[in-house]
Amino acid sequence: MGGDYGLDVTIPAVQKVLDAHRSLRLVVVGDADKISRAIDSLNISSSSISRLEIIHASQIVAMDEPPASALRGKKDSSMRIAINSVKDGKADACVSAGNTGALMATARFVLKTLPSIDRPAIMGTLPRRQGHVHMLDLGANVDVTPEMLLQFGIMGSTLVKQLESKASPTVGLLNVGVEDIKGNTIIREAAELFRSSDLNYQGFVEGDDIFNGNVDLIVCDGFSGNVALKTSEGLAQMVSAIMREEFGRSFLTRIAGLLSIPILKSMKKRVDHRRYNGASLLGLRKTVVKSHGGADVLGFSKAIEVAIAEVKSDVIDHLEVALSKPLESAS
Amino acid sequence: MGGDYGLDVTIPAVQKVLDAHRSLRLVVVGDADKISRAIDSLNISSSSISRLEIIHASQIVAMDEPPASALRGKKDSSMRIAINSVKDGKADACVSAGNTGALMATARFVLKTLPSIDRPAIMGTLPRRQGHVHMLDLGANVDVTPEMLLQFGIMGSTLVKQLESKASPTVGLLNVGVEDIKGNTIIREAAELFRSSDLNYQGFVEGDDIFNGNVDLIVCDGFSGNVALKTSEGLAQMVSAIMREEFGRSFLTRIAGLLSIPILKSMKKRVDHRRYNGASLLGLRKTVVKSHGGADVLGFSKAIEVAIAEVKSDVIDHLEVALSKPLESAS
Repeated sequence: MGGDYGLDVTIPAVQKVLDAHRSLRLVVVGDADKISRAIDSLNISSSSISRLEIIHASQIVAMDEPPASALRGKKDSSMRIAINSVKDGKADACVSAGNTGALMATARFVLKTLPSIDRPAIMGTLPRRQGHVHMLDLGANVDVTPEMLLQFGIMGSTLVKQLESKASPTVGLLNVGVEDIKGNTIIREAAELFRSSDLNYQGFVEGDDIFNGNVDLIVCDGFSGNVALKTSEGLAQMVSAIMREEFGRSFLTRIAGLLSIPILKSMKKRVDHRRYNGASLLGLRKTVVKSHGGADVLGFSKAIEVAIAEVKSDVIDHLEVALSKPLESAS
Repeated sequence: MGGDYGLDVTIPAVQKVLDAHRSLRLVVVGDADKISRAIDSLNISSSSISRLEIIHASQIVAMDEPPASALRGKKDSSMRIAINSVKDGKADACVSAGNTGALMATARFVLKTLPSIDRPAIMGTLPRRQGHVHMLDLGANVDVTPEMLLQFGIMGSTLVKQLESKASPTVGLLNVGVEDIKGNTIIREAAELFRSSDLNYQGFVEGDDIFNGNVDLIVCDGFSGNVALKTSEGLAQMVSAIMREEFGRSFLTRIAGLLSIPILKSMKKRVDHRRYNGASLLGLRKTVVKSHGGADVLGFSKAIEVAIAEVKSDVIDHLEVALSKPLESAS
């Protein structure tokens, strides 16, 4: 399961999710001794314990390991064994807070992609004042074709439809302006494909529409999607840091800070990235969810919840149907 | 000068800057009657008035007008006449809050680009907890080559050197990860060029390094640069809106809000985008500065200040020298 904090985060998250879903079974893959100790140190109910299985893995994929090295050299890694267990039908989905590139490469290799999909995309969720927005690709495909963007749109739209019971999610293409002439050839050709597809396409959107716009789904290449995501993370961190500095500046500002705690907490809760943790690797034949490496217990449990929701709503079957249709009419 | 608020913003800003720079002369191009009335309505000192000239323009370029239409059909627009006045040596620089695409197209056509520069780039400044960061391209070039990225680096570095008296500004290339293998061919080839150039190149940076990193200058293609900029604007707007909502929620939260006003003001000041208004169109033979369309008086005056600083420090001459050197060694 990995991540920056390892079992200190993943096992309490496992406990939380097992307690919340009374028919869920979880397989934890990693160093069996350490996992057992982490489980023993918690007061997990017998019902939850009975639905928890450990599979030992003798290797781990480092967070900075090149995907190719992980794929070839780490056949006994927790990541590989977890993905293998999905392939073998032992598990319905894999959740990992580990190395994204290695997870994507291993999942592609072991689980294979859906028909017509060459490279899967990473889809995530970001907060808005009211509700949230889904966005893909967040970094798996730095170079895209118009056809790939359409596939992202179809996959993303299908996921939103299934998970949020929206009949026809609205879709926008991320661009540097909303006028038809904006952007490069790829994005303009993609817009053509979107317009002639079955998607509820609303046109181009800009960076500020991620947080202030109203489409349900934003489609973009993995380069700008990743830049947008990380830029937001960086700005949010800076604003938090400046807030702490300013409220901590003097006795009086500390008093104001104390009085503002409930407000700041409520603000934080509304934009809490942990509530939106769990990015889907879309385009694979099985469900794989990536947790942020730095996720805490709440964050990691949300990533497991995403995987549960996808399995429960048969997302893969719906993706397969959706991808078999409009691509034909569009090509 | 244009912008969303027209003369209500630009003329007070002109007054502010004329008052602050006692040897500055400003030429205001637009509807002469309206400009005169706007000037009359303000209490501008006779010294400042004497350094203010009006040139009448019978046309305006609309904010959503395609660049080609502005270039061909609006030869009497305020934008075109302002740029012509720079070409004719009547003014040293042009500042506009108008249509970015039209400004860039007209400036390229009338003023021409520096040798070896095909398309100019837009360079802006963004706040950090301590200090700020410069970034280009923010939207002029959605498709780039490695060589163009190097030119952006050389131009940006030269500007930072001149304006901030930094001997060797640190430079990063925006990518989706910091490892050498990350990104696409263009960005990896650009990294090679940067490494063998005279730039103080620090390697790849990611989106969160815009606000939390430490390089002086971030170089990127115009697509991801624009997405990063607008995503930040959108997130900042959302955070402000949520803050207002949460502090306005009840009597008690309003009290806390009142007590927090100095803190919130101080916070706002530190990240105030108006203080960073004024993006340079780099690569032209003359100084052209683009103000945010929605800039207020403080914001627009900052954009004029940017133009003054560039002219005073002979940025164009330095750019010409810088571009003639390292490009040869790199090619």
